[in-house]
Amino acid sequence: MKKLGIGLVGSGFMGRSHSHAFHAAPGIFDLPLTPSMEMLADVSEEVAAKAARALGFARSTGDWRKLVADPAVDLVDITTPNTLHKEIALAAIEAGKPVYCEKPLAPNAAEARQMADAAERAGVKTAVGFNYLKNPMVALAREIVANGEIGEVVSFRGIHAEDYMTDASAPFTWRLDEKGGHGVVADLGSHIISIARFVVGPIASLVGQIETVVKERPVGPGESRRRKVLVDDEARALVKFENGATGSIEASWVAAGRKMQLAFEVTGSKGTVVVDHERMNELDLYVTGQPAGREGFKKILAGPAQAHFREFVPAPGHQLGFNDIKTIEVRALIMALAGGAPFQPDFREAYEIQRVVDAIVLSAHEKRWLDVSEV
Amino acid sequence: MKKLGIGLVGSGFMGRSHSHAFHAAPGIFDLPLTPSMEMLADVSEEVAAKAARALGFARSTGDWRKLVADPAVDLVDITTPNTLHKEIALAAIEAGKPVYCEKPLAPNAAEARQMADAAERAGVKTAVGFNYLKNPMVALAREIVANGEIGEVVSFRGIHAEDYMTDASAPFTWRLDEKGGHGVVADLGSHIISIARFVVGPIASLVGQIETVVKERPVGPGESRRRKVLVDDEARALVKFENGATGSIEASWVAAGRKMQLAFEVTGSKGTVVVDHERMNELDLYVTGQPAGREGFKKILAGPAQAHFREFVPAPGHQLGFNDIKTIEVRALIMALAGGAPFQPDFREAYEIQRVVDAIVLSAHEKRWLDVSEV
Amino acid sequence: MKKLGIGLVGSGFMGRSHSHAFHAAPGIFDLPLTPSMEMLADVSEEVAAKAARALGFARSTGDWRKLVADPAVDLVDITTPNTLHKEIALAAIEAGKPVYCEKPLAPNAAEARQMADAAERAGVKTAVGFNYLKNPMVALAREIVANGEIGEVVSFRGIHAEDYMTDASAPFTWRLDEKGGHGVVADLGSHIISIARFVVGPIASLVGQIETVVKERPVGPGESRRRKVLVDDEARALVKFENGATGSIEASWVAAGRKMQLAFEVTGSKGTVVVDHERMNELDLYVTGQPAGREGFKKILAGPAQAHFREFVPAPGHQLGFNDIKTIEVRALIMALAGGAPFQPDFREAYEIQRVVDAIVLSAHEKRWLDVSEV
Amino acid sequence: MKKLGIGLVGSGFMGRSHSHAFHAAPGIFDLPLTPSMEMLADVSEEVAAKAARALGFARSTGDWRKLVADPAVDLVDITTPNTLHKEIALAAIEAGKPVYCEKPLAPNAAEARQMADAAERAGVKTAVGFNYLKNPMVALAREIVANGEIGEVVSFRGIHAEDYMTDASAPFTWRLDEKGGHGVVADLGSHIISIARFVVGPIASLVGQIETVVKERPVGPGESRRRKVLVDDEARALVKFENGATGSIEASWVAAGRKMQLAFEVTGSKGTVVVDHERMNELDLYVTGQPAGREGFKKILAGPAQAHFREFVPAPGHQLGFNDIKTIEVRALIMALAGGAPFQPDFREAYEIQRVVDAIVLSAHEKRWLDVSEV
Repeated sequence: MKKLGIGLVGSGFMGRSHSHAFHAAPGIFDLPLTPSMEMLADVSEEVAAKAARALGFARSTGDWRKLVADPAVDLVDITTPNTLHKEIALAAIEAGKPVYCEKPLAPNAAEARQMADAAERAGVKTAVGFNYLKNPMVALAREIVANGEIGEVVSFRGIHAEDYMTDASAPFTWRLDEKGGHGVVADLGSHIISIARFVVGPIASLVGQIETVVKERPVGPGESRRRKVLVDDEARALVKFENGATGSIEASWVAAGRKMQLAFEVTGSKGTVVVDHERMNELDLYVTGQPAGREGFKKILAGPAQAHFREFVPAPGHQLGFNDIKTIEVRALIMALAGGAPFQPDFREAYEIQRVVDAIVLSAHEKRWLDVSEV
Repeated sequence: MKKLGIGLVGSGFMGRSHSHAFHAAPGIFDLPLTPSMEMLADVSEEVAAKAARALGFARSTGDWRKLVADPAVDLVDITTPNTLHKEIALAAIEAGKPVYCEKPLAPNAAEARQMADAAERAGVKTAVGFNYLKNPMVALAREIVANGEIGEVVSFRGIHAEDYMTDASAPFTWRLDEKGGHGVVADLGSHIISIARFVVGPIASLVGQIETVVKERPVGPGESRRRKVLVDDEARALVKFENGATGSIEASWVAAGRKMQLAFEVTGSKGTVVVDHERMNELDLYVTGQPAGREGFKKILAGPAQAHFREFVPAPGHQLGFNDIKTIEVRALIMALAGGAPFQPDFREAYEIQRVVDAIVLSAHEKRWLDVSEV
Repeated sequence: MKKLGIGLVGSGFMGRSHSHAFHAAPGIFDLPLTPSMEMLADVSEEVAAKAARALGFARSTGDWRKLVADPAVDLVDITTPNTLHKEIALAAIEAGKPVYCEKPLAPNAAEARQMADAAERAGVKTAVGFNYLKNPMVALAREIVANGEIGEVVSFRGIHAEDYMTDASAPFTWRLDEKGGHGVVADLGSHIISIARFVVGPIASLVGQIETVVKERPVGPGESRRRKVLVDDEARALVKFENGATGSIEASWVAAGRKMQLAFEVTGSKGTVVVDHERMNELDLYVTGQPAGREGFKKILAGPAQAHFREFVPAPGHQLGFNDIKTIEVRALIMALAGGAPFQPDFREAYEIQRVVDAIVLSAHEKRWLDVSEV
Repeated sequence: MKKLGIGLVGSGFMGRSHSHAFHAAPGIFDLPLTPSMEMLADVSEEVAAKAARALGFARSTGDWRKLVADPAVDLVDITTPNTLHKEIALAAIEAGKPVYCEKPLAPNAAEARQMADAAERAGVKTAVGFNYLKNPMVALAREIVANGEIGEVVSFRGIHAEDYMTDASAPFTWRLDEKGGHGVVADLGSHIISIARFVVGPIASLVGQIETVVKERPVGPGESRRRKVLVDDEARALVKFENGATGSIEASWVAAGRKMQLAFEVTGSKGTVVVDHERMNELDLYVTGQPAGREGFKKILAGPAQAHFREFVPAPGHQLGFNDIKTIEVRALIMALAGGAPFQPDFREAYEIQRVVDAIVLSAHEKRWLDVSEV
């Protein structure tokens, strides 16, 4: 079978996750291309070599440019901090190689647009890793809405809250560095925005609020010196969708106790859909018109009737995990690269998501409603 | 024992609820005054007489002024539609009689302020029926926050959503009449605002959004003629509290499937508290600093350790209901009338709540952030 | 309106609960008889007098025989420890007065049968306070089963577990005294047995297991002297119903953390019903034949569509509490006394429940299956 | 790195699951041996060849004896229906090759013992795929119990219920064939028995009940001819553990609506642990001694603090799925084969589990309590 040479740049949380997914996908799915772990690049030869061994890549390099240029690399997979995405992606695009990039695509919408424009000009396929869109229960939510099963969409209430920055003594990381753009609104907010767009549609206008809760943090692990935090720990927006629905979007990484509260509720004129990723194998569905005394939300458990579940396990209730969702993402990417349906979200969609992120921040700074098109 | 002569104006949902509570309170609590159901007023002699029989009132009248003037009536209890609150309350205050009034206090903040001012000038005690503040689990949330058990308050996320207006063919009621002021933001929004103030504190500024989802409705039951709806079916606000915490507040009466989603989440620097009135006997509490591998939200069930539970039933898990909460409210009122701690929320606090309601609407119309003090 | 003179014997947890219910019922329901709190009897004049004041009874006595004989007492209401039930009930029956008695009816089935026989011979109406049968959601479970909405009943899995005896230093009470018959199998087990019979039907045979977990306890509060516990802390049975369904029944008062786990699951050939009293306003219903990908348990919240909810509160989601259920029980009793449908469970049904209790204990002692008819 | 040649016999649900796990394990874990998919055997050359292609095995055969004899096969992995386990396993043992076999090990305890005896005599390592023991939350339950965090174990209440045989028109499969031994008590019951033993300890005695709910079924898909079902659709037992704890165990494959209700509750003298595989990333823990008014079950979400979670994903709340658990199982097996801690459960433990299965069935037939040692 034809091989797909993978060149992975970065080997952190997401680098490992991509690697797991590429390893797992051929065993789970019937694929037209077989991923081949060709090369891994990281900040140094040593780091890259060690990661390559751990993740099963054939070769490694401390210079991502070599990876982009390597003839065995068919796909450039970027899982670095987001300040590096653009340079690597543009090089890959210039080399005519498809790019698979982690989210958020760029520190700001302007750079994201450059990337999307470049890819489209070059006719290069792109993919951005908004994992949760590939959760079968999120896909089910979209299907229910698209089918009109809950009528016209009236409102959306979404949040992505975790607590990994709750501890005020948690030190700086690249996620807190203002050079990377924004804080939680980009890191987690982009996920719930991606879902809002996926399930309900484009956001026309919004008013945002952002807050830096922990004003300064240690510059690094074990350091007593502190640095001022310039990015947001919390973000919120009231939104109006192009289709007339309204709603709210929130993000926090200081939500004590919340580990994966990526949750949303879509209310329609005839029903409601609820998903929460702390129970990512469930979807609650209410529809109007049930018999009196028998009305209620139905709890649907993930099972073979949902997209791509069956390939993992043929029995309902046997649950998918986070890595399985990433495997579904990789499948969609491989199918797209082999000529199937275009992958979504691509750079263009990631740019649209980033615009909403930027709009929330701009709106918060200017303390006013604004149209997303202003960004 | 000394009697407290009750004069009830109105006999709908809330009139019945107050009546249940006055009947039940002396059996549950050791009270300094015994409620005596003296007189019930309603829109006509007939309606009042029938309600008085059903609810155990000694006398009835079609003219609330007679009730206010009646020497046996010690407390004027107002459960009419809110457009009537002011006139009745002012008459009672003029008569020097304490007033117990359903929420929202008035169609707008200006009228609410007149009422509060009048009561304070006259030195008359007042009480407003924001029932859910009397839920022991809401009181527990406040206690946990006040104790600092979750550190400094960082954020509040609250909603009150129900679905009784979801059906687009549901006809006009007084709640939809713009003469009564606002729509759901007043009817349900005032509840979640009352909780936000009770648990976190005053709201300094906000930006609001309101939406009329069903644009017109039948003028009455069984009528085909339709009338334009001018009040809100949905409302949202981003808020900043005076203490620096931020948050969001939402209200909807078109939230299909939600029957009593009066839910809130208070996040602090060291923990989180969650309450949802669809399970009103529960409170979820997370605190930081739990041992690794044993971290989690604790589900606290209502029981005798919570305020006023023991008087209803001495065993935990045996649950209070909606009417029990109203009985707790009535107890607090009777204690206040007998010289105990002042009842809260009084007209002044209800005015402050109404200001937030009005501020949301004004902000939504003007599409800008505003200080609540502007209202 | 005609009065119903209540004579209450006992003023503990259940005495108070009955009193609350009699006070509340006329305000909630339209009743043919008005309860009048005539007399309260307890272990001494002093105790009785104090309780009478607290609970609103006109007179009191230290001698229950006077209460039974009192011409103003129309109903003898027994809430004493169960060793006293028989003597009082037989006296009331002899006086031709209807009896309302707490559960379990007697320390053993033989005495329960005597009581049932005596009542039937005398044509006296009886009622036994298995409260939870009056929970609208339990009634709904029965209705769903009776309607065939889940097909033929296949199995029943029920438990009543609480934790009030978990602490090994919790002292003796009358509930632990072997003179009162059995332990948790009678105290809590009788509740889940009453539900099994109510929802599924009579139990034909069973095999039981009982266990005394805490072998000895302090003789009283603050006492260091210990007494051997002879009754069960835990009980279980496998059962076969007369209609062919099978199942299990469990009871425990040493179930750490469980406050009101009176929970059951009825599986039918076409669906399943689940109720848990820690969330007593909910019922989960699954039916087969739902569309693929939309299958799930439906969570039905208590509301006006369920029996007797509307009289308490007209809005769904606004929850009933434990005392409300007791009020529903009292309503059914008053209706029966006024010539309406006979109250269930009566002494005969309570005897049948007690037979199952005794059968579990006997089976456990003899370590064999037995027919309930052997008891 | 040293390779571990895998020979897989069978390619159904579990064959695929094992294959996924072997593919995934080296990417997730740092392993001393690298699995190499050497050969796959199935009922025919054609079936085997197709499965080998799909699952990434190098070679295939229609004769499992060739697989056992193949020098490149280091591990014989058996995922056939259980009637075939013994013959294949004994051949592998004779060839001195370790065996990894799906559960239940054999149709009955006698055969399981032969297999365990043969393996021990030959000094061959064995492993049986009771997946759920490898769920980190089940391991956590065991750890909590073993640590004494909930005191002495008092009782166990466990169930494994699904609904794949609810439909009375679901046709015969090998699982229903009495030649394979028992019905659900073996298929699902063995899982909950394995957990009971893993968390609490050996079962000394029991009384069982089994029931064939659907008395006859179509002989095959689309067939109108019916065959009598001789195995159980439901099974229950009351048990006594060797350590004195008591409990109940249930299994059903006709539990309408239940997809993966593998749930258990361990009550100790000082707390309770609850796990339910429909939410397999959660564990509820209650401990006594919490402050008054702050008592409750704590919901612990799976995260890096639990065994083996971190290797899959470093962030809590990001959930493992069914296949991940199987990957943890494969890791433990590979470590054992490389000289690490012996794998559990091995054939000996699987025999002990099977004895409990057989004891339930025998007890049900003879309608008596029996010691598991009688089997």
